[in-house]
Order: sequence, then C-alpha cells, then structure tokens
Amino acid sequence: MKISRQHLDEYEQRYRANLINSLSGFKSANLVGTCNSEGATNLAIVSSVVHVGANPPLVGMIMRPNSVPRHTLENIKATGFYTINQVSDKLWQAAHQTSARYPREVSEFDAVGLTVENLADFTAPYVAEATLKYGLALREVIKLDLNDTEFVLGEITEIHLPAEHIAADGYVDIEAMKAVAVSGLDSYHITKRLDRLPYAKTE
Amino acid sequence: MKISRQHLDEYEQRYRANLINSLSGFKSANLVGTCNSEGATNLAIVSSVVHVGANPPLVGMIMRPNSVPRHTLENIKATGFYTINQVSDKLWQAAHQTSARYPREVSEFDAVGLTVENLADFTAPYVAEATLKYGLALREVIKLDLNDTEFVLGEITEIHLPAEHIAADGYVDIEAMKAVAVSGLDSYHITKRLDRLPYAKTE
Repeated sequence: MKISRQHLDEYEQRYRANLINSLSGFKSANLVGTCNSEGATNLAIVSSVVHVGANPPLVGMIMRPNSVPRHTLENIKATGFYTINQVSDKLWQAAHQTSARYPREVSEFDAVGLTVENLADFTAPYVAEATLKYGLALREVIKLDLNDTEFVLGEITEIHLPAEHIAADGYVDIEAMKAVAVSGLDSYHITKRLDRLPYAKTE
Repeated sequence: MKISRQHLDEYEQRYRANLINSLSGFKSANLVGTCNSEGATNLAIVSSVVHVGANPPLVGMIMRPNSVPRHTLENIKATGFYTINQVSDKLWQAAHQTSARYPREVSEFDAVGLTVENLADFTAPYVAEATLKYGLALREVIKLDLNDTEFVLGEITEIHLPAEHIAADGYVDIEAMKAVAVSGLDSYHITKRLDRLPYAKTE
C-alpha cells in the first residue's frame, strides 16, 4: 500500500509515532549514564545513538528536550561527560523502564534495579551490569530547528569491554555479548549473524 | 579490559575503524536511491539512518563526503529528493556490494543486480526488490565541523509497504519483513523478537 503524506498527517498522534519510528530500521539500544553537578545519578534508554566517525571517535544521539531524557541532557550540558552502556538480553526490561517519567530526585539506577559503577576517575556513572560501555566528553550540541530536537555529539575517551569479544581485525562481536536491537518505540530483538562480508570491490 | 584514548589513537587505522564502528550497537541497513539532474541513477548502502521525529516525519543520516556515497550526496543536493529502501535478508549481499567504488557513470542498480522502480511521479528511484521504502524531500544538510561529515535531514513524503505488516497501533513489523541489522562495518544479522513492552510508567 502507499501512505501519502496527507494520510500520514491525518493519523492519530500515537499511531503515527509508532509507524514513523519503525521506518528507519533496527536501532541500537543504549543506556546513557549521567550525574548532575552534585553527583546525583541519572540513567536513560536512548535508541538514537549513531556512529559519526572513528578518528576522532565520535558518537551522536538525538535528544528531545521535552521528553523523558531531559534530565540526561541537562546533566550532560552541566558536567560535560556521559557514559554509553550497551543494552543486552539481561538488561532490556530494566533499560526500557528507565523511560518512565521519574521525578528529578529519583535515580533511575535505583528505580529500575541497576547498579552504579564508578570506573577510574570518570565523572559520569557506568552501569555495572553492562558488558560493553564507554565514556564520552561532550563536544557539540546542534539544535535542529526542524523539530526542536538536539543532536548531541560526544568524543569517546575510554572503552570498557571483554577482550575476548574483539576480533583480530578490531571488530567487536556485539552479538556474542547478546546486545539487543530495537524496532519502533518498544520492540526488542536479539540477533543471529548472517555473515561478515569482505570489503566490497568493483571487480 | 580498558582501552584508553591513548591506546585507541595508536591503533592501526582499519583496526580502529572496525572497533569504533562496533560500539554504537546494531545499526539500520538501508539503500539510498538517487538520480542526478539527467536522471542517471545511483544506489548506496547507508548504516547511519536514524529516526529524528514523527511529526513532521524526519529521518537523518551521516554522510562522509569523501567516501563511497559521495555521488549520492551530490544527487540529493542537486535534485532535492531521495528514497530509503529497507535491506532485507534477500538483499543484504547486493546491498553491501553497492559500497564498492564504482565510477560515476555506473549505476549501482545495474552493477549489483537490483531493479530501478519509479513509483508515481517521485523524482528518485526506488529499489523494486525492497518491501518497505519511502520517499524523502531534503530539508537540511548540517556540516559537522568535528570531522567534516554531513548530517542530512529529510522529510518523508510517501511510504510504500505491505498493509499486513502494520499492527493495529501503527507499529510496523520490520522483523516479519526480514529486515537485517548491521554491526561494525560489514556484519549482517537477522533478528528474533524478545517482546514488545508497554509504555513505561513510574508505578
């Protein structure tokens, strides 16, 4: 079937949100850990984390200032640091629960039963239960005037993961770590590898 | 293990690219269809398509001007339109092959054996073999000064998909359509749903 733009605009809001959120394909599932200037922790699931570049190592994410992760964005701007913690098949239900609208004084770590882990002297809190996680320094926040969201760009400063999941060529086997993928707003998936393909050449 | 930023910077370039590309989690797999002002078609696999907003329906993608999809970006800027075609388990090998450095005069549709489909009077070409696909009008290109990539924002103008894969609440079952996920630069995965979860509430 064809859905015209006019039909799309006439859909009920939640129906349209479910549909449009499904179109980009599978999304990453990550928990973003932050603290405010007093050290109070915050944790939010984000499905918009996207690779931006390897050198320097840059990661982006789309944040909606008026939706649930607003405390996260405030903390990132206040401290300049945050962690990204990969959501696995052990964590997906607790991770999803962080999207509830907890009041500012509640730490989602406590509310959903995940453990704050402070590694080395990194400012922001990690999720102890996450197998792959890394720390980032905020580099830029770009306001998207098209819909008042913000594109948050961070530079990776340290990475924590089990050495046995790094292949000889640097590829990290996130499937072996049971990372989950998201579709739409609320569907979680495990994966099965088809294959890795060689670098494509024209001949 | 901990990988410090200093270690990361000392890695060989390809090793670092594989590693950093794995960290964001599972990525979407999409083919971007374009044509130039003379109507010559182009097709490129992109793993950075990200949901930006539902109303208006906005989709973003990161493009590296000096890498393979540079003809794609030129065409989008020249015509103002492009298509996004979901990569399924029938298409993933042909889709990957579009990343080879074909000369400008070669259409990747022909080179990899996919079929141009012109739907209604939309300017840009669709992939006939793709089950879910949509047309976009370019809205904004944001240059990221941090690494000279460009964040391309488009607004969805029409959507083509089988009606039977749209759930009652608007969610599109991309797993039932055999959409694939990508990890790193070259690993393709099918999925198995864990569950859909209800909207999270604090009580």
